[in-house]
Amino acid sequence: MRRVYADHAATTPVHPRVVEAMVAAMQAEIGNPSSVHGFGRTARRLVEEARARVAALIGASPQEIFFTSGGTEADNWALRGTLMANRARGKHLVVSAIEHHAVLDCAAALEREGWEVTYLPVDSVGRVREEDLLAALRPDTVLVSIMHTNNEVGTVQDIPRLCALVKERDPNIVFHTDAVQAAGILPLDVKALGVDLLTISAHKIYGPKGVGALYVRHGFRFAPVLFGGGQERKMRPGTENLPGIVGFGVAAEIAREELPRRAEHARRLRDRFLRGVLERIPGVRVSGPNPLEGTVPCHPGIANIAVQGVESEALLLALDLQGVAASAGSACTAGSLEPSHVIRALGLPPDYAAGAMRFSFGEANTDEDIDYLLEVLPQAVAQVRGV
Amino acid sequence: MRRVYADHAATTPVHPRVVEAMVAAMQAEIGNPSSVHGFGRTARRLVEEARARVAALIGASPQEIFFTSGGTEADNWALRGTLMANRARGKHLVVSAIEHHAVLDCAAALEREGWEVTYLPVDSVGRVREEDLLAALRPDTVLVSIMHTNNEVGTVQDIPRLCALVKERDPNIVFHTDAVQAAGILPLDVKALGVDLLTISAHKIYGPKGVGALYVRHGFRFAPVLFGGGQERKMRPGTENLPGIVGFGVAAEIAREELPRRAEHARRLRDRFLRGVLERIPGVRVSGPNPLEGTVPCHPGIANIAVQGVESEALLLALDLQGVAASAGSACTAGSLEPSHVIRALGLPPDYAAGAMRFSFGEANTDEDIDYLLEVLPQAVAQVRGV
Repeated sequence: MRRVYADHAATTPVHPRVVEAMVAAMQAEIGNPSSVHGFGRTARRLVEEARARVAALIGASPQEIFFTSGGTEADNWALRGTLMANRARGKHLVVSAIEHHAVLDCAAALEREGWEVTYLPVDSVGRVREEDLLAALRPDTVLVSIMHTNNEVGTVQDIPRLCALVKERDPNIVFHTDAVQAAGILPLDVKALGVDLLTISAHKIYGPKGVGALYVRHGFRFAPVLFGGGQERKMRPGTENLPGIVGFGVAAEIAREELPRRAEHARRLRDRFLRGVLERIPGVRVSGPNPLEGTVPCHPGIANIAVQGVESEALLLALDLQGVAASAGSACTAGSLEPSHVIRALGLPPDYAAGAMRFSFGEANTDEDIDYLLEVLPQAVAQVRGV
Repeated sequence: MRRVYADHAATTPVHPRVVEAMVAAMQAEIGNPSSVHGFGRTARRLVEEARARVAALIGASPQEIFFTSGGTEADNWALRGTLMANRARGKHLVVSAIEHHAVLDCAAALEREGWEVTYLPVDSVGRVREEDLLAALRPDTVLVSIMHTNNEVGTVQDIPRLCALVKERDPNIVFHTDAVQAAGILPLDVKALGVDLLTISAHKIYGPKGVGALYVRHGFRFAPVLFGGGQERKMRPGTENLPGIVGFGVAAEIAREELPRRAEHARRLRDRFLRGVLERIPGVRVSGPNPLEGTVPCHPGIANIAVQGVESEALLLALDLQGVAASAGSACTAGSLEPSHVIRALGLPPDYAAGAMRFSFGEANTDEDIDYLLEVLPQAVAQVRGV
């Protein structure tokens, strides 16, 4: 049986050069990067080389990059680190309704602890409206967190514009964007975006799982949330994840070189898939921006389709039996039978929303994968619909 | 020039079988362990296999093991997760004065946030006194955190006894122990220890950097401190560090098999080193328990010596030029010129305390390493003393 991995938005295969670099780092270097002796210094050099590579991917300077255990920790840190350091300024934050759970659930936890949160609705394709954002800002607003590219439906927000609007109102409001799903496939430049904080993760750009980074612009109040050793310039303690960080660095370097080709490859396959699906399966609509219309910026590799009259979990199961990996919602909440918070925020009709599914394409895919998907998906839909 | 790595307490070389398993996991598995499809399920199996192996190392059941990004995160989580979940019971915690900074600095941060902390002194070999512990307990004490084995001087506390004393006073007081430095070289059994929470880290047991675990006994109130996806049974969100966790699992399995041999190997080399040093260098004393006397339980591989009339940093630099890696204090605070908080807590005379240095032995060492150390260390001491 053919196996097709159409879940690149959940995680990506690790690039062979990344694995090689990680092995070399583990074999060659005994040292703790924080140790001052020769063994430690060699490890330190590897960490700093990786930091420069990750910085280059997003137009940051290396001193603005802080390694974390992944996107979730970076998102949590962005929110909590800003709010803890700016208690005197207020206790209000603004997040969009379609953030990843790492932002949403952290915001909810902060709410339980006494902070106040405004959740911004989105339009039918997942965009935050400027007027909603402006209406949400208060004199005591400390932080705004709006995702760069949505992981489920692929909507790309106009972050430079949204950030500029916020800064125009009050330059002291800290702006964070979760760019985990954008990195490596859409060009990112922190200066052009104008943001203060930006989250990325290695395993979405063909790097290893278990490592991410938070970009922290110089010049605003920000605090650590973990306490211990002096690592990461006293901002994030703990012995550095040497293999993970080295792998992240190599993945970032490859991503920078390969970005245009990767984006084009994913886009071509995704568009073929989407055209084929809309042609062959009745009662299907695109959830979020329709890439074939091209009117709303979106992730090149994500196709989220809503299939009328089916439960997405049933369809995923049928596809799994055919060797196909896709998803409903994000992997982090897989197993839930409810339509995701993102699908609900778009306001899809309920008989479509229940059948929303994400296919996400990337380097592991070929045209033959698309042929196979266009063969098995219509059958699976018919089977689940019982027709 | 010969290179001698005598800093195993800072970090250990990664075992070749660990590297192999990590590579296999990264090459074979595309999936996100949280995805329900076949690719995800294969990754999930690897995570759960590793969890069982880590659990077996400390006599826990797999459901009591929660993977973290390392010892620092696990220590921070142990403290904050207990206190946040038990606000109603009180706001007092007790920690020893010789904890790792991951506990001490977290306790200090909690103090700034309004919790109250009692720091337990230690005796001249680093042991917490029972009477001090009992005197510190209050009706509103929520948590006690006492390190199993000190990372700088190797003192092993009598955790079963200390924990029993606390539980006798009030069975609701949560007991945490940081066993990072004990794991893999001293037998650990959470049931025999009686603790509620225990921290371990992969990179101290010949596993990869960037992954650790917190043992959380069933049956007391404990809360997450990171928020997001449903990973780790909704207790620790974020895509699992698949290579790190797999490597940790293999390292734990090897450690369980090899523990007696590893301990004996380290002990023999450490004792040879220590005897040689005390014979050849005047004005040297052992900081903490003297393993050659054998009266106080201690780590088999750690020799912390205090050299009169030298600054340890100068001595480390001289040794580094001879290819020797040792340390003063922990790697996490390397670079500081002050005697560490542990050395200060022991009450060494100042002219010895400034020259306290840790040599820590393990699998990377041979008898030839000891010969070399006993050759270059007396020279280096003489050189730094200017005699």
